[in-house]
Amino acid sequence: MSLRRAELIAVGSELLEPWRTDTNGSYLSRVLGERGIAVRFRTVVGDVMQDIQTTFRVALERADLIIATGGLGPTIDDLTREAVAGLLGLPLHEDASVLRRIEERFRRHAQSMPPQNRRQAMVPRGAEVLPNGLGTAPGLLLTTGTVTVVLLPGVPDEMRQITQASVLPRLGAAAERFVYRVIKIAGLTESEVDRRLAEVAGRAAPAEWTILAAPGQVEIHLRERVAGGRPADAIDRIDREIAGELGLHVFARDEETMEDVVGSLLVVRGESLACAESLTGGEIAQRITRVPGASRYFRGGVVAYTEEAKRTILGVQAATLDAEGSVGPETAGEMARGARRLFGSTWALSATGYAGPAGGGSSQPPGTVFVGLSGPRREETRELKIPGTRETVRSRTARTALDLLRRAMSETAA
Amino acid sequence: MSLRRAELIAVGSELLEPWRTDTNGSYLSRVLGERGIAVRFRTVVGDVMQDIQTTFRVALERADLIIATGGLGPTIDDLTREAVAGLLGLPLHEDASVLRRIEERFRRHAQSMPPQNRRQAMVPRGAEVLPNGLGTAPGLLLTTGTVTVVLLPGVPDEMRQITQASVLPRLGAAAERFVYRVIKIAGLTESEVDRRLAEVAGRAAPAEWTILAAPGQVEIHLRERVAGGRPADAIDRIDREIAGELGLHVFARDEETMEDVVGSLLVVRGESLACAESLTGGEIAQRITRVPGASRYFRGGVVAYTEEAKRTILGVQAATLDAEGSVGPETAGEMARGARRLFGSTWALSATGYAGPAGGGSSQPPGTVFVGLSGPRREETRELKIPGTRETVRSRTARTALDLLRRAMSETAA
Repeated sequence: MSLRRAELIAVGSELLEPWRTDTNGSYLSRVLGERGIAVRFRTVVGDVMQDIQTTFRVALERADLIIATGGLGPTIDDLTREAVAGLLGLPLHEDASVLRRIEERFRRHAQSMPPQNRRQAMVPRGAEVLPNGLGTAPGLLLTTGTVTVVLLPGVPDEMRQITQASVLPRLGAAAERFVYRVIKIAGLTESEVDRRLAEVAGRAAPAEWTILAAPGQVEIHLRERVAGGRPADAIDRIDREIAGELGLHVFARDEETMEDVVGSLLVVRGESLACAESLTGGEIAQRITRVPGASRYFRGGVVAYTEEAKRTILGVQAATLDAEGSVGPETAGEMARGARRLFGSTWALSATGYAGPAGGGSSQPPGTVFVGLSGPRREETRELKIPGTRETVRSRTARTALDLLRRAMSETAA
Repeated sequence: MSLRRAELIAVGSELLEPWRTDTNGSYLSRVLGERGIAVRFRTVVGDVMQDIQTTFRVALERADLIIATGGLGPTIDDLTREAVAGLLGLPLHEDASVLRRIEERFRRHAQSMPPQNRRQAMVPRGAEVLPNGLGTAPGLLLTTGTVTVVLLPGVPDEMRQITQASVLPRLGAAAERFVYRVIKIAGLTESEVDRRLAEVAGRAAPAEWTILAAPGQVEIHLRERVAGGRPADAIDRIDREIAGELGLHVFARDEETMEDVVGSLLVVRGESLACAESLTGGEIAQRITRVPGASRYFRGGVVAYTEEAKRTILGVQAATLDAEGSVGPETAGEMARGARRLFGSTWALSATGYAGPAGGGSSQPPGTVFVGLSGPRREETRELKIPGTRETVRSRTARTALDLLRRAMSETAA
């Protein structure tokens, strides 16, 4: 198959407002790229019949694959189905099996279907129905002339599920494709990574190289165009060179997160984890338990937002709190030890500090943080000075605490 | 000035890649909206001459203000200037004063101008030059027929500086502007809100009405065009009508979140909060502590991810766990009571359930959740059946728990 020209259309007035962005397009760009299909245009249009039709009319002239997201909901604002059917002159009919599935979905949740959801069972003549495993609006696939038009719901989970299950398999095998790889790095700033990888970046071609930073994490994004079933030689070479240069700082690739890596290590070692948090307010536990199956290794955590809770629940000593206040290395250490004892876990992580906007006086500005680790034959605390907003301080603290555990496990036998 | 139809065009192949998004568009949407100019379309196009020209040709037909960002740099990839001049049949000439300013900028940084930067001094005939205070590429403003075309560099700082200094003043005083309001609703599904507000929505004009759903939350986005310093009468009227129809289901407006509202109520009442979580894994505590100053009312929480932790730390009775397992109304109730006792707080929230992908057998599929509230003279548990992914189940549970507390406080005197 030759490379195809795709246009992505995001429908929704809210996407034209300052406070929203279309995230579906990023996902679709990637999965299409992996199949060698280049996205040539992305258009965002509001919930206005005439504007939606104009957008599709233009796209039909310049693309041979159109994927639109949004506007398939049950409300009167949801116009995509009617707009496309109208533009192509296709009558809409109620599809009995779609209607049945929508009704079943409501029944399963002990509800009856509201009458307006009936609209979601309307299908343009000739369209293929792409079942929605997570919601009520199915996707629709139409062919008009040489153009394939796919309509998907705007809810990201539903959009992705339908894309994986029904859209990608219908696009056929690719003669050329883009291979992507993301290499994730912890414990270094963007400029440190940039400096240490300058030479590697210089010989990245034919792969394309982009560096991106998030709080407490730097990512190298690589893209390479390869023929048919060929491997991505340049990406594999660069990956090895980065790993050689940065060693344990490289913690994951692609979709894998820090909490996935920590979870896998714990499962392999048959070990367990608990945590004790103050400034992160539950974010460390929340990240750990994002991973399906976290109950195999996560015992629990305590959010101790007062000195009293640190003392009575976690067993931090009054003398320590008198000496350091709530924020200090010994407090962090005792919190980790207390959580490990309380939950009977192999390892425990702790974090205490000032997330901001308030700090702890001139010597402890917002962003002053201590993270702690307690485990078999190993105790560790680390002081961090994190610039940025409350949210940045909290998320970088959580990532750093998890990285402390990852490094400890990578360096010791179970 | 009458209201204009704007189209935003972002030029740059990198903006079609999965990992990039166009942030300039959000900024421009907002500053144009404040001047009463509605963005009708946003288009992203790569660095391909033909594609850029197609994009402008389409925009010239459907907009009367086009603002394009990107593609004005010095490299051979930067094609916007040539594409627009070619499309409109305008010859390019080298502008001596622009060239002088570019050369000066390099001199100031003790560099000589690379030859390729000479391209940035090329100006289409009749175009007005908009000086760039932060970089080399000036903006360009053209009028063709009734359409105003503005070309700006893609670097966000430069784009904003030129917009503030030169673009907005040329758009004239805003005789009209858009007023925005978001009304946030809890405890109802999107279809329920849609049904109950159908009549209100029907008389929303002249305000525009958009309904949006997130897990456990529905939002009505309103936008009204008003003259000069006039108030947004339609928005104020609709807001009252929605509040009248939905009562306590309306929990916040605009930027305010559920956790902000809960926090404000606790501060006003001088009360405190704790929580006990299982499936949410810390997300309830994490949300509460997102709010700066949460330490005034939040005492802490326990994430009890095992039966043992529920029993030993929260004091859930062995008999309850034997009867219900970890997931049931009595377990949720005892967890809330236990957290309230442990932290000595006025109120406590709890959540237990199956986030998925695994459930608790055929009678308890993933999404089976119990939330609990314990407070002065009030105990409550509620069963939820939440469809969707692990992430959706967790976030909707957290929002529902917080809403339980909000309603309890709204219904009782402190």
